[in-house]
Amino acid sequence: MSDIHEQTINTIRILSADMVQKAKSGHPGAPMGMAPLAYALYQHTLKANPRDAKWADRDRFVLSSGHASALLYSLLHLYGYGLTMDDLKQFRQWGSLTPGHPEYNHTAGVETTTGPLGQGVANAVGFAIAETMLAAHFNREGFPVVDHRTYAVCGDGCMMEGISSEAASLAGTLKLDKLTLLYDDNEISIEGNTDIAFREDVGARFLAYGWDVIRVKDGNDWTQVCAALEQAKTTDKPTLIICPTVIGYGCDAKAGTPSAHGEPLGEENVLSAARKLGMPETPFTVDPQVYAHCGEAAARGAAAEEAWQAMMQRYRAAYPALADEFDAWMAGLPAQHAFDDEQIWAFEGKMATRATSGEMINRLAKVMPNLVGGSADLAPSNKTNIKNGGDYSAENRAGRNLHFGVREHAMAAICNAMALHGGLQVFCGTFFVFSDYMKHAMRLSAIMKLPLTYVLTHDSIGVGEDGLTHEPIEQLAGLRAIPDLLVFRPADGKETAAGWYAALHCGLPTALVLTRQNLPQYEDSGKDALRGGYILSDSVKATPDVILMASGSEVEQVMAAQTALREKGIDARVVSMPCMELFDRQDAEYRANVLPDGVRARVAMEAGATMPWYKYVGLDGEVLGIDHYGASAPAARLFEEFGFTAEAVVAAAQRVTGK
Amino acid sequence: MSDIHEQTINTIRILSADMVQKAKSGHPGAPMGMAPLAYALYQHTLKANPRDAKWADRDRFVLSSGHASALLYSLLHLYGYGLTMDDLKQFRQWGSLTPGHPEYNHTAGVETTTGPLGQGVANAVGFAIAETMLAAHFNREGFPVVDHRTYAVCGDGCMMEGISSEAASLAGTLKLDKLTLLYDDNEISIEGNTDIAFREDVGARFLAYGWDVIRVKDGNDWTQVCAALEQAKTTDKPTLIICPTVIGYGCDAKAGTPSAHGEPLGEENVLSAARKLGMPETPFTVDPQVYAHCGEAAARGAAAEEAWQAMMQRYRAAYPALADEFDAWMAGLPAQHAFDDEQIWAFEGKMATRATSGEMINRLAKVMPNLVGGSADLAPSNKTNIKNGGDYSAENRAGRNLHFGVREHAMAAICNAMALHGGLQVFCGTFFVFSDYMKHAMRLSAIMKLPLTYVLTHDSIGVGEDGLTHEPIEQLAGLRAIPDLLVFRPADGKETAAGWYAALHCGLPTALVLTRQNLPQYEDSGKDALRGGYILSDSVKATPDVILMASGSEVEQVMAAQTALREKGIDARVVSMPCMELFDRQDAEYRANVLPDGVRARVAMEAGATMPWYKYVGLDGEVLGIDHYGASAPAARLFEEFGFTAEAVVAAAQRVTGK
Repeated sequence: MSDIHEQTINTIRILSADMVQKAKSGHPGAPMGMAPLAYALYQHTLKANPRDAKWADRDRFVLSSGHASALLYSLLHLYGYGLTMDDLKQFRQWGSLTPGHPEYNHTAGVETTTGPLGQGVANAVGFAIAETMLAAHFNREGFPVVDHRTYAVCGDGCMMEGISSEAASLAGTLKLDKLTLLYDDNEISIEGNTDIAFREDVGARFLAYGWDVIRVKDGNDWTQVCAALEQAKTTDKPTLIICPTVIGYGCDAKAGTPSAHGEPLGEENVLSAARKLGMPETPFTVDPQVYAHCGEAAARGAAAEEAWQAMMQRYRAAYPALADEFDAWMAGLPAQHAFDDEQIWAFEGKMATRATSGEMINRLAKVMPNLVGGSADLAPSNKTNIKNGGDYSAENRAGRNLHFGVREHAMAAICNAMALHGGLQVFCGTFFVFSDYMKHAMRLSAIMKLPLTYVLTHDSIGVGEDGLTHEPIEQLAGLRAIPDLLVFRPADGKETAAGWYAALHCGLPTALVLTRQNLPQYEDSGKDALRGGYILSDSVKATPDVILMASGSEVEQVMAAQTALREKGIDARVVSMPCMELFDRQDAEYRANVLPDGVRARVAMEAGATMPWYKYVGLDGEVLGIDHYGASAPAARLFEEFGFTAEAVVAAAQRVTGK
Repeated sequence: MSDIHEQTINTIRILSADMVQKAKSGHPGAPMGMAPLAYALYQHTLKANPRDAKWADRDRFVLSSGHASALLYSLLHLYGYGLTMDDLKQFRQWGSLTPGHPEYNHTAGVETTTGPLGQGVANAVGFAIAETMLAAHFNREGFPVVDHRTYAVCGDGCMMEGISSEAASLAGTLKLDKLTLLYDDNEISIEGNTDIAFREDVGARFLAYGWDVIRVKDGNDWTQVCAALEQAKTTDKPTLIICPTVIGYGCDAKAGTPSAHGEPLGEENVLSAARKLGMPETPFTVDPQVYAHCGEAAARGAAAEEAWQAMMQRYRAAYPALADEFDAWMAGLPAQHAFDDEQIWAFEGKMATRATSGEMINRLAKVMPNLVGGSADLAPSNKTNIKNGGDYSAENRAGRNLHFGVREHAMAAICNAMALHGGLQVFCGTFFVFSDYMKHAMRLSAIMKLPLTYVLTHDSIGVGEDGLTHEPIEQLAGLRAIPDLLVFRPADGKETAAGWYAALHCGLPTALVLTRQNLPQYEDSGKDALRGGYILSDSVKATPDVILMASGSEVEQVMAAQTALREKGIDARVVSMPCMELFDRQDAEYRANVLPDGVRARVAMEAGATMPWYKYVGLDGEVLGIDHYGASAPAARLFEEFGFTAEAVVAAAQRVTGK
């Protein structure tokens, strides 16, 4: 029998292989190769208290290679995060705490949902940014209230994904010195040896980004990994630790081959691996000595939190207001009171909704000191700048304006982690059409239900001269189809305020979809917008002849059409529908009141793909949208050419009413 | 007056500024900064014949920073590609040949649609790959039939985007020696100096990828750029040429500042720039000497093509079969005859559609020698491997299987360019959920109407144990909302064959959406699937009591429900709807025959977001889909738990028929 360190490492290996084998599904190779890295982290490095997995000042750990979930679950079991052996046996089964990829808010000790490659690397950058922002705000001489590190583990797949390049370049620019990325360099990808597609010098690449790079000689030697992790604490840059490992280590039949990656090793192979590694032959067996050994790390973590709590008591005495603010920020309470002030709902004159949103950001920033955000190099266009908020940088951690560069995908994943971290209220912006670039990170915002606000401006052919590459068409449909994402397209200032209210209060990510062009303010718009869809201007009769629906900029056309139709003796109701997701959440009575089943003469207009509207318009109405690409010309010309006019609404209303 | 070279460069600068000024919209800064680079390329380097912009062996030029479109249009005017001065004056206006960003198939000499940053860099890699593949196939001793280079120009924005990192890493791995990327390093981004977000050492990064890097001392000196371009021809690696430039060069009021980027300089500023650069004060004025000078380059290009045509005559004599094949490949004729063979439609037994697609790829590969493709490191799962096709690599340009690595976004953009290049029939694959990562490149496939096939497998909760991160929900709706993209989700082998037929014959990009799990073969499925939706199993009565619709794997449930409903006295029609886009393109009579307006009792089932189906189901039917995330468990369990059963269809049919 090897020493307790090797015994623990091999326990992690075989437990992981057991889980995959029992589930007849999963990824045994990465856990077996990375076990020494994971051990070095969980046993010797991480500041974390398994009994209080949510301790505010814990180190954050991200398993970017989420397919190695069996590794993480083995660790969470051994180190006392509450996962039982039965949980491990239920790996990948219905209702278990041990799903195929790690899920945030599902399993204690999982900091972020991973699996889609590269996301975790960007998440780690976001965790590290949040730490520096909070430290700058709260720490005082002798009171390192916020003082923790961020660790991530990733493999070749994460390294190849562009999102990790974006995030790593930004991390180097920002000198995120408390960020450490461990690279599980096993030279194997699914299609074969990595040299079929990936011959770059990863270390040199990270040096170019402004990172420190440590090349561990043998990633299988936990002491070398530990030494590297300690060295990483001494630099003023983020650190990449390159660890040469062997995928499927211990399983002679498969080690170092693609077949170790994504399928069970086979019972015979697990057994021979157990024998080779000196482990018990019975699956799911852990030596009590291993539990005891891991318990030492957990005890150290508990002591660390205790010391921190004691310091916080002294901090509370010395800086009571700051301590209260720390509690409030970490509790994540949105500034309810901000919206009690009627002034926050007030807008005058023609304004683009990107401008009303910019105004909202600045109104809110005054009463929400933890509101921070930025843009993918479009702040002047997105109107995302917090005036006098300062620019966040390597030199100024107190800045509230983040400059993400032209890196939409990393931006979204970074913001996901800033929201995950706790303490900050985060928004980020880009052109609506480039939400495509960050689609998958937005999906993860939604999967994790993170209260993050996406400020997406230039929302239609209203973009105008920039032409079809910059004009969203299908993006509204695409984002609305994402479960648990609110898509809010306001028609004016008050609806923009409602959108921001929803974003800050619904506990879900929200995409604010905003115009480039100016829009009028409506007398009767406002808080009803929080119901997602509402009667903005009703028919004279209790039952309208026709219902006109629209969102955002096209509310103007349907409002004008209502007037024109009245002259033709057609009595129309106008429904403003800024947020279908919120409307669908209203009770049946409310929805039937807005859209009575008996009125089938319905017309919807929106400068986007028609798909989302059939649900409300049915087979007897008409959807006036755009199911082809735009063009380059002044916006007014495009609205005319593509039929987004009051006249088109009137004609459609006449067709559907037969009048 | 400076020499003719400087005069031409300054003409390009002022013409570009004039265009933006007249349009009152656009980006003058980049064209003015990049004019020397552009001049070095168009005057002295590019092998191209403006009078035959589609010459097969021309060098490809990609303006990745597409916002600098005024630069490209100035060049296309001066070098004789057919753009008139009036076209330049119509910059960014309705119906003009000079839209806000360059559009392929709209303006002669534009090789690819750019604007969304980073895409052009990946396009350039795709052009270069295509060149090597065709060269390997067609070139013979003394007959360099395919022997051209690829040039791209990009700025900081492209460099920050992850997609360019992915593409550059692959280009280095593949040693694409005929690829040259010019980096317009002007240190200015929209939000300010690039050092707010981008301090990396770009040159070092590209060295790490395996590129050669040339640092031009002064990007404003065209002779230095020319020297670098010549040097790039002498290496066995791709080359990055870093050119320090000044954004808005010539306009003293704005040069070197973000305000030069995206708005007109102002009439006064254009005028003073013209004076400073020794240009005429009247806008849109070109000295005849400049036209004459540019004409010399055009004449050289014409001579080059002439020489190539002469060589092709000799080649045709020496290798008549190869020459015919070259013509056929470049004409892009799909293998119609392949589908005449009934065997290509034949499948037996339970098979996943990913497997039937894999079979199709191999059946087609035998009769389509220019069919090439690959996967983002998921070939064994996507079933995209061409057996005995060989692996494309730096060492084997004849391989038909591409290994893109875990780089979905670059993969799609690379394949766009391979399709643009001409000569190859291209497909690429990944898991359906990760189509998110390449969404925007797919949009560009559609904008350009490129006949590219996306093989997207693991298409629903049928993924099973991998869990919610890997289970597509909203992706079908999202892709279907993209104009000019066919989304084809076959129910069995024959429908898979139809999907491949559509992909190869419709002249549009096609997303084949395929299952992981096995499905039955249907007796009456088949070529009718090319109509997008068709009656797979009809009601007994001419007018059914209820219409059951489904796509892909859920056809199995609605077929079973039809039988069960018959026992309850409900006469159902089953409509298989593999491709809504094709169904919507059928004439009204056909559509009404499949979905008669009078039958409002309709039920649709699909293991995806419900949104796309309301168009066919209306307000009186029911859509059985999944508008929430999946879970980790065996697939059969998930279908059961989430209600994808024949019983659920039966119950819904009973509700909508009231029986």
